[in-house]
Amino acid sequence: MINALKDVTQVLTGEDMAPWSQDWTGQYRWTPLCVVRPRDTAEVSAVMRLAHDSGTPVVPVSGHTGLSGGTEGEGAIMLSLDRLDRIEEIRPEARLARVGAGVILSDLHAAAAELGLAFPMTFGAKGSARLGGLLATNAGGSNVLRYGNTRDLVLGLEAVLADGRVVDLMSELHKNNTGYDLRHLLIGSEGTLGIVTRAVVKLVPQPRAFATAMVAAQSVDVALTLLNRLQDITGGAVEAFEFMPRAYMDAYAALHPAAQAPFAEPHDVNILVELGATAPRDASPGPDGSVPLSGLLEDALGTLFEEGLVMDAAVATSEAQRAAFWTRREAAAELSLAKKPCVVNDVAVPLDKVQTFLEQAEERVAKVDPQADAMVVAHLGDGNVHYAVRVTDAACVTPVMETVEDLVRLLGGTFSAEHGIGRSKLGSMARRKDPVALDMMRAIKAALDPKGILNPGKLLPPA
Amino acid sequence: MINALKDVTQVLTGEDMAPWSQDWTGQYRWTPLCVVRPRDTAEVSAVMRLAHDSGTPVVPVSGHTGLSGGTEGEGAIMLSLDRLDRIEEIRPEARLARVGAGVILSDLHAAAAELGLAFPMTFGAKGSARLGGLLATNAGGSNVLRYGNTRDLVLGLEAVLADGRVVDLMSELHKNNTGYDLRHLLIGSEGTLGIVTRAVVKLVPQPRAFATAMVAAQSVDVALTLLNRLQDITGGAVEAFEFMPRAYMDAYAALHPAAQAPFAEPHDVNILVELGATAPRDASPGPDGSVPLSGLLEDALGTLFEEGLVMDAAVATSEAQRAAFWTRREAAAELSLAKKPCVVNDVAVPLDKVQTFLEQAEERVAKVDPQADAMVVAHLGDGNVHYAVRVTDAACVTPVMETVEDLVRLLGGTFSAEHGIGRSKLGSMARRKDPVALDMMRAIKAALDPKGILNPGKLLPPA
Repeated sequence: MINALKDVTQVLTGEDMAPWSQDWTGQYRWTPLCVVRPRDTAEVSAVMRLAHDSGTPVVPVSGHTGLSGGTEGEGAIMLSLDRLDRIEEIRPEARLARVGAGVILSDLHAAAAELGLAFPMTFGAKGSARLGGLLATNAGGSNVLRYGNTRDLVLGLEAVLADGRVVDLMSELHKNNTGYDLRHLLIGSEGTLGIVTRAVVKLVPQPRAFATAMVAAQSVDVALTLLNRLQDITGGAVEAFEFMPRAYMDAYAALHPAAQAPFAEPHDVNILVELGATAPRDASPGPDGSVPLSGLLEDALGTLFEEGLVMDAAVATSEAQRAAFWTRREAAAELSLAKKPCVVNDVAVPLDKVQTFLEQAEERVAKVDPQADAMVVAHLGDGNVHYAVRVTDAACVTPVMETVEDLVRLLGGTFSAEHGIGRSKLGSMARRKDPVALDMMRAIKAALDPKGILNPGKLLPPA
Repeated sequence: MINALKDVTQVLTGEDMAPWSQDWTGQYRWTPLCVVRPRDTAEVSAVMRLAHDSGTPVVPVSGHTGLSGGTEGEGAIMLSLDRLDRIEEIRPEARLARVGAGVILSDLHAAAAELGLAFPMTFGAKGSARLGGLLATNAGGSNVLRYGNTRDLVLGLEAVLADGRVVDLMSELHKNNTGYDLRHLLIGSEGTLGIVTRAVVKLVPQPRAFATAMVAAQSVDVALTLLNRLQDITGGAVEAFEFMPRAYMDAYAALHPAAQAPFAEPHDVNILVELGATAPRDASPGPDGSVPLSGLLEDALGTLFEEGLVMDAAVATSEAQRAAFWTRREAAAELSLAKKPCVVNDVAVPLDKVQTFLEQAEERVAKVDPQADAMVVAHLGDGNVHYAVRVTDAACVTPVMETVEDLVRLLGGTFSAEHGIGRSKLGSMARRKDPVALDMMRAIKAALDPKGILNPGKLLPPA
């Protein structure tokens, strides 16, 4: 098998496989059969034909930043997308980019910015995550509130199927009703139905102005009222609304003692708010004396302070201060995974249930493990709470996860908002997902990958 | 069969079936086995179980406003969604509605408006079209530019499968990465994979201000420059940008001689532009003298007139005038189908190719049928052109369609932007769609509806 693969693409074996033999979280370690590094779609296709003929499992891997064990590959061909890293074309007037699946997210950010445009998907791992992984997991992040999830930013894609055939869905169109939406089926399928090799993604005008603030509020419910008021006042210009509780702020301060705290006094509910605007009238004071974006945010927060919705606020006065606010927020994965054993819950509940979730989760988890210690950070505008619980010992992991998920279900939420299923949420998938939906997924998987060679053991729990 | 159906739901036979025995365009007529009118999901499920056991075809039908023959049902059980017409709940703070598939679009508009919200999908047939049909076809329309297609406005849904099982995907969440996106697979599948019975749809704040104008431009390319400039000046507030050429204006005037023309002189390129804004600062002049939305549009058009991008403009000064602008635009189906035989092309091309398409289509069609006469109207901001060609006789239909589609393909476009496939575009689907994509669709269809009873003979051409 390995020799046959060497005829069609670059193959790594032995110690060279080390970077592809564990995941970022350290939860999973494995020994692949080999690693292949195709440089184009034709090589991906050739690998899949060989794998299909021999029934060998193939695990696609992109930027190694997943949090759910989605690239575990014991005995499998690890198919790395890292060499498909070409930004083929950016067409500013059409506001789109054609990219390879190996392009690093921050490289696409930089290339778009040079042309006055933005690819608005962003999250902490942007310097390592690659587009293929974003598409495979339908990545979320901090700008979903305004711009949607990854799937909402993809116009078209190309993928290699289990048997090596290439499906061409590289549409640049905003309307295209020609049969089942295979693009959306492949996005978020975690490499189990096909390997995305290229994509057409939407770009948006780069905001001409940002206004960024740290805001303290009395409670999460008050913060959500604040969000609605801000959206109203600014006509929907809120790009991010990120919640960090006191424990998060404390943990960050402990790890980075030199970092300046945003407020003189600590607060329980801290929100990173960012507005973005593309209209020139919002970027700088108009000739008629109209107020620019940062002034708009200051004025709005002043009004909301008088109304008692805001307890304290610090508006960034420089790009450096804005960056410092974001660095604190993007340390979430680092802070959450600093101590083991840890139960990583990536849940979403309806917006009006977030405070109830936080209160009840604390109570309920304490009954299961009185020593448990939660590290919380939330994309509050999406109802998406990262609720990582450090538990006393490994025996507490499953009961704590079950407790959190029971509560989420009660509140009409989901057990996996943006991290996907991979291996680590297979149990939740089996217990929590609608059984008819699971049957449909299994039928689709069997129809498109009858030998079950594409990323086996991920996403779909055994029947 | 009919007696068994009578035990589970309301059944119509004989002359009572007349409204379900032809489509709106008059292209298709058929004799159903019977019509069933279930009043809830359980009755839909019971019908499907009986149909599945006996292998009887079922054709779901919603508001009868489709343009592609998607509800043709010779010998089939016509399953009407019209009694599933309950707006179950509107939650203003969560900005969503839970609706039955039989709800009429304009009823949802009205119910949302009472609460200061909007369901932003709209098109000419809004007074008849029902939500189930919108979802089955992923309906487009005039606000896609700002708010997306139907699929972009759906958070969750419920559907009945071919064998009568009910799949519950009624999520209210904006992030939910738990396996394959069955919601997007069902949306746009034209009733061939399941029957959508309920949905959770997004609502948006009702614009507090509209500014609507008819604008004349030198050419389609100039009009697109105008669109980009307007988006820039207004920070992306353009909700509609609808193109009507001179022939369209003339045809409308002939049919409605009392209607007032927007301009003193006729123009070749006429655009209906609408801005919408939700921020209070845009709804009325601010205390600082800032300019409201209609003033913003007037000022912008004034500037663009001086730059030579605008030849003439009429800004609506009353709601009645705004309504008159829209009435003209929404007469498109009526005008296009007024004369037979007619080739209805619903194409999209990349924005920068629209002018080329219009020029070359006219030349190429004239070579095939010198007497051919095109009625064009376009959602120009989406690159979506409705290009209806009245041909000399039926023998010209296929060659003219082929000619238009060849050109569309050359320009990287699609042969069906928003009307879907149904029966009338099956040939195009067979000839134009990526063959691997077609194979994937057939495999999915066989996996989810192995007896092929759900809306047979639609969407998927025979292998």
